[in-house]
Amino acid sequence: MHNKMETTTARLEEAEERIGELEDKVMEKEEAEKKRDKKIQEYEGKIRELSDTLKRNNIRIIGIPEEEERGKGAEGVLEEIIAENFPELGKEKGIEIQEAQRTPFRRNLNRSSARHIIVKLAKYKDKEKILIAARGKRALTYKGRPIRLVTDLSFETWQARKNWQEIFRVLDRKNMQPRILYPASLSFRIEGKIKVFPNKQKLKEFVTTKPALQEILRGTL
Amino acid sequence: MHNKMETTTARLEEAEERIGELEDKVMEKEEAEKKRDKKIQEYEGKIRELSDTLKRNNIRIIGIPEEEERGKGAEGVLEEIIAENFPELGKEKGIEIQEAQRTPFRRNLNRSSARHIIVKLAKYKDKEKILIAARGKRALTYKGRPIRLVTDLSFETWQARKNWQEIFRVLDRKNMQPRILYPASLSFRIEGKIKVFPNKQKLKEFVTTKPALQEILRGTL
Amino acid sequence: MHNKMETTTARLEEAEERIGELEDKVMEKEEAEKKRDKKIQEYEGKIRELSDTLKRNNIRIIGIPEEEERGKGAEGVLEEIIAENFPELGKEKGIEIQEAQRTPFRRNLNRSSARHIIVKLAKYKDKEKILIAARGKRALTYKGRPIRLVTDLSFETWQARKNWQEIFRVLDRKNMQPRILYPASLSFRIEGKIKVFPNKQKLKEFVTTKPALQEILRGTL
Repeated sequence: MHNKMETTTARLEEAEERIGELEDKVMEKEEAEKKRDKKIQEYEGKIRELSDTLKRNNIRIIGIPEEEERGKGAEGVLEEIIAENFPELGKEKGIEIQEAQRTPFRRNLNRSSARHIIVKLAKYKDKEKILIAARGKRALTYKGRPIRLVTDLSFETWQARKNWQEIFRVLDRKNMQPRILYPASLSFRIEGKIKVFPNKQKLKEFVTTKPALQEILRGTL
Repeated sequence: MHNKMETTTARLEEAEERIGELEDKVMEKEEAEKKRDKKIQEYEGKIRELSDTLKRNNIRIIGIPEEEERGKGAEGVLEEIIAENFPELGKEKGIEIQEAQRTPFRRNLNRSSARHIIVKLAKYKDKEKILIAARGKRALTYKGRPIRLVTDLSFETWQARKNWQEIFRVLDRKNMQPRILYPASLSFRIEGKIKVFPNKQKLKEFVTTKPALQEILRGTL
Repeated sequence: MHNKMETTTARLEEAEERIGELEDKVMEKEEAEKKRDKKIQEYEGKIRELSDTLKRNNIRIIGIPEEEERGKGAEGVLEEIIAENFPELGKEKGIEIQEAQRTPFRRNLNRSSARHIIVKLAKYKDKEKILIAARGKRALTYKGRPIRLVTDLSFETWQARKNWQEIFRVLDRKNMQPRILYPASLSFRIEGKIKVFPNKQKLKEFVTTKPALQEILRGTL
C-alpha cells in the first residue's frame, strides 16, 4: 500500500510537470498568435490598398446586354453612352479610355443577367467627370434602355464607404459639405477648413477636441 | 497515510482542473485557427488576382542575349521580333508598347542563361494578337536564333492552367471548343452556348446538371 | 482506503491520457503554425512586390504648399519644377506624366506640413532621368523655395535599401561601382562583371566563393 502511494505521488508529480509545460507552451503560442493576427490584419489593409490603387480610374457599367460590344469593343460602349447621355462631355477633347472589358464572371453562373463592363480611364479626373455627370442625370440609358454607371470598388471598400453613411447624412443636414474621397475617406468642412478622415478611429480622435462636433455626431460614432 | 491520501486527491483534482482549462483553451484556439486559415486562403486568392491584373497585358520573351537591348531599349527588341516574324502585324497601326524591361533576376545567380524580357502592352488585344500570331508559326527567331514568346503568368496561375490540361484535351477531342481565358478559366461550348468556369469546383457543380457532360468528363474531375 | 487508492489510480490514468492527447494536439498545431507563418511571410514578399510594381514609375515631391496645384493640376507642378531646375530636360521630347495627385493623408492629421505629391510617369526611364538630374543639383526649388524629389518607396522597401547602406559604402570605397537597383537590389562590379543581389542572403552565398570579397565585406554581412 505504501509503495503504491509512493508510485502514485511520483506519477502525479510527473503529470503536474507535463501540465505546467503545456501551460507554458500555450501561453507562448498566444503571443505568436497575436503577432500573426496583427500581421494578417496589416496585410488585409495593404491588399485593399493595392486593389484600390488598381481600380482607381475604373467605371463599372451595369446593364449592357452581352455581345453588345462585338465589333466596337467594350471601349466603344462607353463612347456611345457618353454620346447618348452627356453629349457635352463627348465634345471635350480627350477623355482617354485605357482599356475596357467584361468582368470575367457573373456572381451566379446560371443567372442570365449580363456581366458588367469595367472601363479603365487614363486619368482619374475623367472618371470623376463622367460619374459627376451621371449623378446629375435622372436616368441613364444605352440605346434607350436603362443602365447604371458606378465607381468600381472592392467589396471591402464598398463596405467602408457604407460605414460613413449615417455620419454623412448628419453632416450634410448641418451643411458641413461632407464628401467621400476615393477610396473610402470622409471629408467635411469645419471652422473654415476641409478635414479628411480615413476611418472612424481618426474621426473619433479628432472629435474629442471639438465639443460642438461631438454634439452633432452624438450616437453615430 | 490517510492525510497523504487526502493531499494526493486534492492535487489530482487541481491537476484535472488545469487539464480541463487547457482543453478548453486548445478548443477555443482551434476556432481562431480555422478563421485565420480561411483569411490566409482568401488573401492568397486576392494577391493572385492583383498579380494577374498587373501581368494581364504582359508578354515574356525568352532567349534574347543579355545586352542585346542596349541602345534600342527592350521595347526595340519586341519591335524587331515582330518585323522578323510577323511582318503583317507590324504594318497594322498602333501596337503600343507601354514598357519593356529585363526581369530583375535569373532563377540561379550563377547560371549564364539570359534574363527574360517582360513587355507590357498598352492593350490586352495587342498582346493576344501577338501571341496568336506566335502560336501560328512553327518557330520564332530573333536575328535568326530561336526565341520563345509566352504569356507572363505567376507561378500559381500557371499551375491553375496546368490543372485544366486533361479536361481541355477531352473537350477538344469532342470538338467542344475549349479555351483558356486569362488568367486561368476554362471556357467551352455546350448546347450552343459558351460557358466559363473559374475553377474545377464550379465545373463540378455544373456537371451534376448535365449527365452527358458527366459521361464525357468521367475520371477527369 | 484500498478502494480510494484504486479510484485515485484510475483518475490519474485518465488525467495522463488527457495530457497525452493535449501534447499530441499541441505538437500537431506546431506544424500547422509553421506552415501558416511561412505562408504569411511569403505573402508579405508578394504584397511588397506588387506594391513595388505599382510604385515603379513614381516620383514623390516634398515641399509644395497645399492648393498650389489648383488650376494647373499636380501634373503642372512637376512640369514647372522641370522648367525651373532642369531646363535641358524640359526641352527633350516627351517626358510623359501619366498622373499626379496629392497623397491622401498627412502622417499626422493635426500637423500643418503640406501633403506630398505623387507623380506617375509613363516610362521608368523618364523617372530615372529626372531623379539623376535632381541628384546632380545642389538644391532644388519650386518658385524659389526648397523642395525635394525622391523615388516613391513602400516603408518595407525603403528599409531594405537602408540595409545595404554599410555594404554600399565599403564597395564604393573600393571603386566597385555599387548601385541600388529598383526596388532594393544591390549591384556591383566584380572580376569585370556586374552582379546583382536581391538580398543579403544571396550575397552571403556568393561571398563564400570569393575569398577576396569576403575580406572586403568582413563585419558587414
